[in-house]
Formats: sequence, structure tokens, C-alpha cells
Amino acid sequence: MEVDKKEEIKSESSEPVVTPWEVSAKDGGKIDYDKLIDQFGCQRLDESMIDRVQRLTSRQPHVFLRRGVFFAHRDFNEILDAFEKGDKFYLYTGRGPSSEALHLGHLIPFMFTKYLQDAFKVPLVIQLTDDEKCIWKNISVEESKRLARENAKDIIACGFDVTKTFIFSDFNYIGGAFYENMVKVGKCVTLNKAMGIFGFSGEDYIGKLSFPPIQAVPSFPSSFPHLFPGKDNLRCLIPCAIDQDPYFRMTRDVAPRLGYSKPALIESTFFPALQGENGKMSASDPNSAIYVTDTAKDIKNKINRFAFSGGQDSVEKHRELGANLEVDIPVKYLSFFLEDDSELEHIKKEYGEGRMLTGDVKKRLTEVLTEMVERHRRARAAVTDEMVDAFMAVRPLPSMFE
Amino acid sequence: MEVDKKEEIKSESSEPVVTPWEVSAKDGGKIDYDKLIDQFGCQRLDESMIDRVQRLTSRQPHVFLRRGVFFAHRDFNEILDAFEKGDKFYLYTGRGPSSEALHLGHLIPFMFTKYLQDAFKVPLVIQLTDDEKCIWKNISVEESKRLARENAKDIIACGFDVTKTFIFSDFNYIGGAFYENMVKVGKCVTLNKAMGIFGFSGEDYIGKLSFPPIQAVPSFPSSFPHLFPGKDNLRCLIPCAIDQDPYFRMTRDVAPRLGYSKPALIESTFFPALQGENGKMSASDPNSAIYVTDTAKDIKNKINRFAFSGGQDSVEKHRELGANLEVDIPVKYLSFFLEDDSELEHIKKEYGEGRMLTGDVKKRLTEVLTEMVERHRRARAAVTDEMVDAFMAVRPLPSMFE
Repeated sequence: MEVDKKEEIKSESSEPVVTPWEVSAKDGGKIDYDKLIDQFGCQRLDESMIDRVQRLTSRQPHVFLRRGVFFAHRDFNEILDAFEKGDKFYLYTGRGPSSEALHLGHLIPFMFTKYLQDAFKVPLVIQLTDDEKCIWKNISVEESKRLARENAKDIIACGFDVTKTFIFSDFNYIGGAFYENMVKVGKCVTLNKAMGIFGFSGEDYIGKLSFPPIQAVPSFPSSFPHLFPGKDNLRCLIPCAIDQDPYFRMTRDVAPRLGYSKPALIESTFFPALQGENGKMSASDPNSAIYVTDTAKDIKNKINRFAFSGGQDSVEKHRELGANLEVDIPVKYLSFFLEDDSELEHIKKEYGEGRMLTGDVKKRLTEVLTEMVERHRRARAAVTDEMVDAFMAVRPLPSMFE
Repeated sequence: MEVDKKEEIKSESSEPVVTPWEVSAKDGGKIDYDKLIDQFGCQRLDESMIDRVQRLTSRQPHVFLRRGVFFAHRDFNEILDAFEKGDKFYLYTGRGPSSEALHLGHLIPFMFTKYLQDAFKVPLVIQLTDDEKCIWKNISVEESKRLARENAKDIIACGFDVTKTFIFSDFNYIGGAFYENMVKVGKCVTLNKAMGIFGFSGEDYIGKLSFPPIQAVPSFPSSFPHLFPGKDNLRCLIPCAIDQDPYFRMTRDVAPRLGYSKPALIESTFFPALQGENGKMSASDPNSAIYVTDTAKDIKNKINRFAFSGGQDSVEKHRELGANLEVDIPVKYLSFFLEDDSELEHIKKEYGEGRMLTGDVKKRLTEVLTEMVERHRRARAAVTDEMVDAFMAVRPLPSMFE
């Protein structure tokens, strides 16, 4: 019955299918993000808002804002209104620790969240959904917990401020007020509704049905009574990729019925695979992504062999027609990670008009990513077990009310 | 789709419908317990087993065993085999704290569990499912927690040994190893399966779908690492009313896949309402049951006015035909609570052959219940908050390995 509803959603030919577990454009091509905004009912993050962020934080907005990587939002304007009046908020993001090594796409929300934390000087909670991965990926509880701790090291390596950041894993943290909020959410969402939002079917395990409230409740400060004592009305801003939107549509639907504020969201596009822009990168194909564990040689090799090029087949044709920047992965990747706006514009112009060759662009991308990955690796190597324990310690986050 | 399966089960005309939330005989009459045993696939508790209990515990079996109140089991023989060889087990029972005052039907599993604890000298865990009641009865988290603590006092008043008994409420205890086992169970049961076992439908809240693993995991000693340290293979015996069987059918199905022993069960019939034997007593009709808070006057009044009588319409007819003991509630109640076997036999003979009148039987029942309820009330009044805390303290239960 609900399976029919699911089928119905899938058969609407022109709508992209985007859930936390599936991302696909119906025509096999690029995700149409404008359509996704309409379909999900969120708003586009416009120039005037980015200008406002610059004004309020007195610093240049992050590359991911300037270049439209974070492109959509829900109530981000309300967060800015409140901030302007002196009201703080807290950030909430997370990760499902399904693999030991993170790829560049995994780093994006954390790089951006670090910028938001620094720019707005706000506390942050990071949820590691080891329970989710245990259920979905069929890995053991012990292995899920181990991966959560390993991933925490990569997250800490992104440079978060330990005095403002709490990292927790579900297996370690669930209980008490957090569990009470899970129950409160669970009694507001019917099975039919969950099947509609998440595409669950009768063959799915009930463990999966239990999960949406778990990802929902970090949006409510009362889930963290020791972190935010007496601040049950603190607003929450969630930076995430747009495939996580279903969780928070559900959360925002439920929040007022529990007397809680709706969390605000700021949402990113997907980071494309090396092979081209059809959804997200895949953990099952190591050549589809650059990992933070890749050596300089791996990076060079992957970019040269697998990065989909918009350049022409021959040098002559390329000089004449220029590269197709719309499909060119090296240019896409540079637009995520090359910070210098003028250099990026220069590359796009020269490459697009055929004066620069694919090899030149790939060489520059190799430099940028190698430096970034080396920097991450050095930072991760410096993360000790004591530091992980410090980030995971349950304690008030006092710097928030400075 | 699964709703259809549910309908299908309901339309099998001759099968009684017994789930944790619904008990009804299809023909509107008495539950056919033999049919229920067949339908559920459990075993009848026979005389030879009761004799064995007597031999192993060196004491007379409880009235509830002698008179068939606890009438069915799953693997109880294995528990006895192991006990005979010197292997202990632990008891697990529980209560959904949906109301302040307990009625006599609520006391039955606890009275019997106390007997088992004393006779076998084994530890016991008692789960108060305040989260379940919060979801099903739509009462607040705070009120559910308060009711759990109030109910704990009534349970303690049944006389449990604090050195061998751990009482916990889900809202207070869920987390850690208990939660890990919940996730493990949740990834073994499909939604279709849960709908089949419990009769859930698409209109039910996902919170309900999350609950069966919560009632399942106290069957596994690894859910209580602080209570049973290093004893992950301790067998579990669950005394409960047979309407709870669906939870433990599921649990027993899942246990081997997790490397755990299946819990054994010993299951009771339902305690009949004052008005007659059509299912369980109803909290919504205070006159359908005797509560532990009823005064002597209430008890007398309820028995005289509402207890369904198998006596005849007139004294003359009664003297001639005798009472119909099969439907007579005072006799039923006496067979639960009058401990003296010979007096009970005497009453049944005299009443059944018309020499004793309904009024005489009701008078004797009033005495028995008034004394029992007064005794309970005195015991409950003596239960302090400190005692509740002591029963709820997480600590090893050392007496189990004496």
C-alpha cells in the first residue's frame, strides 16, 4: 500500500530521486538543483544573504558560499535576524561512519561547518551515527563504534575548537533526555508518513524505522541538557548536503508539536565523482574519489586517468573550440578547493577558450589537492586519543555565552 | 498490503485474537487456551513438570501452578534441566505503567515471580516500560516516569528481595549495551514481520515500531553488563501473561542469530473481569476490577454488585440445580487467591451442589480479598523513596552466584 506510494514517487519521470540513501537524476544526467529546491520546498541562498553573512561576520564568506556549493536553506534568514540582535545559535552536523577513510566529498560539510563556527563563534554538536551504519551496512556494533572513533579523528583534523565542539556517537550517547526526545518524535510520525518521506518498504528492518528520530533530535537543545543547561530555546542551524533534507523536513514538521523551534538548514550540492556529475561518489569504487589517505602519486594518477575532462579530443580541436566547462571535473574540483578567485577565473577563461589544455588544469588540480590532503594528513596524525576523549566529553560548552 | 495480512488473521473466525493490546475470543465467549497454545506454538505446563518443580525447590508449588493459572511454557523444561545440574538462571518480568493504581490482575505475575525468586533463589530484573505507555497512551514523558516510580512501589510491596532484584524504567535505563542489543534486534526483524506479529498498521506511529526490541532485550543478560558481569550466557526465564507471547516469539526467533540463548517462558491465563470471563479487565471501567487502592467497603460493594454469579435465579432453583462453577466469578477469584486447597474444594462442592448460596461465596471472597488488599496496602505504605532507589540502583546482583 505504502509501497505503491513509493513507486508512484519514483515513476514521476522528471523529478530527481534524492533520499539519504539514493541520489539519481531521472534522465541519467545532472541533478537539477532548482527542481530539487521546488520539490523539497526549501529556499535558494541568494547574493543578498551572502552579503549579509559577510557584513555580520566581518569576514569574506567561505568559498563554498561564494561559489554556490551551499546553495539552499531553510530559515537561515531567521538565524541571521536573531544573530544580528545578539542571539546566538548552535550548529549541528554529523556523519555516518561507514568507512575508515573519508573522501573529499565527506570533508565538505565539516570544512564549511568549521568556517561557520569560526565566523559566528558558536558551539557545535557533531553526531556520528554508528548505529545507523550498523543497521544499513550490516557491520557489527563493535566495528561501527571503532569506525566512529576513527572518523572523529578526521573530523577533529578539520580544525574545530574543542572548547566549542561536542562530538558524540549514538552508541555511546543515546539515553536520558536524548532518548526522551526520540520517543517524543517517534509518537508524532506515522509509519505511512515515514515510508513516504524516506521510501522505506515492508522488507526493511524495523531498526531502520527507528532511526529518523535519532537523526532528528540533535536539532533540539533539550537533547543535550549537560551541554546547553537552561538554554532549551537555543536555535539550531544544520549545515549538510541536501540529501539529508528529508530527515529535517520531518524534524521541522514535528518540532512545533513538541514546543520546540524548527532547526534552520543550510544545504550543499553533491560533490561530483571523478568520472562525472551523476550523483555522489561511491565508496564501492575507490577510483571514483580522492581519499584523504591517498598518496601524492595516487592523487596524480586518479586525476590523470579518471577525472572526466571537458577538453576536446585533439589539441587542434581544443585550441579551436575550447573546453566544455559545464562537464569538466578538474574545473569543478578547482571551484571547490582553489581559494584564489582570480586564479580560478583565469583558468576558466583560458581553458574555456582553448589556450590552456586539460593537462595544465589537471596539473594545477593535482597540486591543490595534494597540498590539501597532505595538510589534512599531518593534522590527523597529530590527533591523539586524549583529544578525541576531550571532544567527546559531556560538559557544558561555556564559550557560547561569551 | 500488510494491513491485508492483519485483516486476514482477524477474519479466521475461530481463532482468538491475542496481542499485547487486544484480547478477544472470536465467538464473544471465553478464550480457548488450548487453541491459543496451538496458535502460538507454546507447550502446556503438565503435572509431571509441576511435580518436578516441587522436587527441585523442596516446597509446595505455588497456587498459580497447582491450579493452572500459569498453564503454558516455552523451554521451561530446559531451565529445570540446567537448574538440576546446578546452573542458575535469571527471571525477567515487567509492567507498562499506564495507571496509578494496580488491580489484582496486575499483581498476578509479580506474586508468581516472587514465588519463583524465593523457590529457585535467582536474580530478577523488572522492566517498567514507561516509554511504551508514553507512546501508546499518549501521556507525557514526565507523567510516564512518575507512574513508573509509583508502580515500582506496588511491585516492591509484593516482597521482592532487594539483594536479588533490579527494577528499571526504560526512560532511565536505555543506553549503552542495552541500546546496542536493541539495534541488533532491530536489524533482524522486518517491518512486514513486525506487522504480522503485532498487528501494526501504516497509521501507527514509528515509535510503536521501535518498541518490540525494547521489550525483547532484557531477555539477554548482556543488556545488563553491570548486573551480570561476565555472565553473558545466563539463561532467562520470563513469567508473564500469555498476551505478551508475541514479543518473546520474536525474541526467540532473533536470539540465535545474535549468538544468544532463547529466553524460556512460563505463561498465565488472563485474570477475568468481575463481570465475567471475556478477556482482561479494563482500566477504563473501575467497576470491572478490584484495585489495590479499594477500601474494604469498595471491595464488598464491587463483589456484591458486579461479580458475575453462576448461582440460580431463586434460592429454590439454586438448592435444586446448584451453581454453574464454569462461569461463576467469585469461585474463579477464590481459585486464584484462596490458598487452602481443601477449603476451595469444599466451597466448590457445596456451592456446585446448591447447598451454599452465592451470598456465602461472595462473603468469603470479600474476606479473602480484603485481607490481601489490606496486606498489600500496609506493605506499600512502608516502601520509602530510598527503597525504590535501592531497587533501581545499577549494581551487580551478587547473590545469584552463592
